[in-house]
Amino acid sequence: MRNIKLIIEYEGTNYCGWQRQKNGISIEETIENAIEKVLKERVEIIGSSRTDAKVHAKGQVANFLTSTRIPAEKISYAINSALPDDIRILYSEEVPENFHSRYDSKGKRYSYLIINREIPSALYRNYAAHVKHYLNFEDMLEASKFFLGEHDFSAFRSTGSSVKTSIRNINLIELSRNAEFITLTIEANGFLYNMVRIIVGTLIDVGIGKIKPYDIKPIIESKDRRRAGATAPPQGLYLEKVYY
Amino acid sequence: MRNIKLIIEYEGTNYCGWQRQKNGISIEETIENAIEKVLKERVEIIGSSRTDAKVHAKGQVANFLTSTRIPAEKISYAINSALPDDIRILYSEEVPENFHSRYDSKGKRYSYLIINREIPSALYRNYAAHVKHYLNFEDMLEASKFFLGEHDFSAFRSTGSSVKTSIRNINLIELSRNAEFITLTIEANGFLYNMVRIIVGTLIDVGIGKIKPYDIKPIIESKDRRRAGATAPPQGLYLEKVYY
Repeated sequence: MRNIKLIIEYEGTNYCGWQRQKNGISIEETIENAIEKVLKERVEIIGSSRTDAKVHAKGQVANFLTSTRIPAEKISYAINSALPDDIRILYSEEVPENFHSRYDSKGKRYSYLIINREIPSALYRNYAAHVKHYLNFEDMLEASKFFLGEHDFSAFRSTGSSVKTSIRNINLIELSRNAEFITLTIEANGFLYNMVRIIVGTLIDVGIGKIKPYDIKPIIESKDRRRAGATAPPQGLYLEKVYY
Repeated sequence: MRNIKLIIEYEGTNYCGWQRQKNGISIEETIENAIEKVLKERVEIIGSSRTDAKVHAKGQVANFLTSTRIPAEKISYAINSALPDDIRILYSEEVPENFHSRYDSKGKRYSYLIINREIPSALYRNYAAHVKHYLNFEDMLEASKFFLGEHDFSAFRSTGSSVKTSIRNINLIELSRNAEFITLTIEANGFLYNMVRIIVGTLIDVGIGKIKPYDIKPIIESKDRRRAGATAPPQGLYLEKVYY
């Protein structure tokens, strides 16, 4: 069997997320159905990240075993021909048979887009979180630095996953502002369930003034989910890149 | 009667355009229906620009006469409560009774977004024109300068409108590139039907090498539509601002 690695872009708006659910259509099954249609073979694809409903990806990675003899770099074109246009395979290549897109991941990069103005945006309603209250960007920037490095991020995880450790290492966190948009870029060796969205929700609380920048350190140390901010909405989140 | 001016943002994807058509729902009628619902009054709104199907707006301007006594600045909130979320009124104010959003316009600003890469984008499929062939940005930039100033733009108009003169004055044209995205910003005292999209189509031909930058001047002077490029697709076009 050949092991094929895919890099995938998708708009999460119309899906129940990467993973199969009882209600709604998943990205995973949509791609598996497209593969079945063009390769005439039922495969199981493994995604690096189980993105939630409405979350987007510019660089999701998945892999699957196949007996097709189509050249690896042509497989992306074949699958695209059978996919809806809100999912695109950007790249396909053959990898060693033991490559596993989830277990072998060394790190991930996410971005999160906020639109900060009074009226919600017609154009960005599915692509950014709308925050009505004025956000103090300088405070958010100051607060963001406290997340850097290795910490136990128990205060920044939702229940629902069963990973062994809640210690993660954030090696990059960047905030930028462009007119009414604020973008967070964050990179770590791995993320707990909802970790990026809870970090964003907490930074929004800092921007509003509910939490002070110097409160971030004790909130992390508390390991208490109730002390961090709300989980920011899914449509602002983008899986940008997976590192191996 | 009071005359109310609106500034409107919309995603054009699911509409047949600003203006009523036999087939499909227009933005105009959607807003008129929302106004009827909240103000209990049937009004006729006048838009500054009859944007085509799939074309977006960040700053469309419209006005309508009403007998409502709701404070002008609250009218936007009232209408938004009855609109689908792909249309948002950003601002409302009272203007003199003789203000006409189309006839009184002194100029407009449009932008156009191109995504230049091999694979179409899942995320930008409705928000940018996809150009697969590599575009030479420097040539496009050089070519763009020839459009500046007052010209007869007959070569850059589609049939279907009946304006008196085809002379327009382009006072700003800017091209910028950011990774795989190319953005055109263009401002003029007015635009002929499909003028921005035909200018973009012509600049794409320059980027591909089909037209040389120094060919732009003779193409303008020819006043011959057949010598300019194709009409670029609607989903890359944004009505940014209307000047009065």
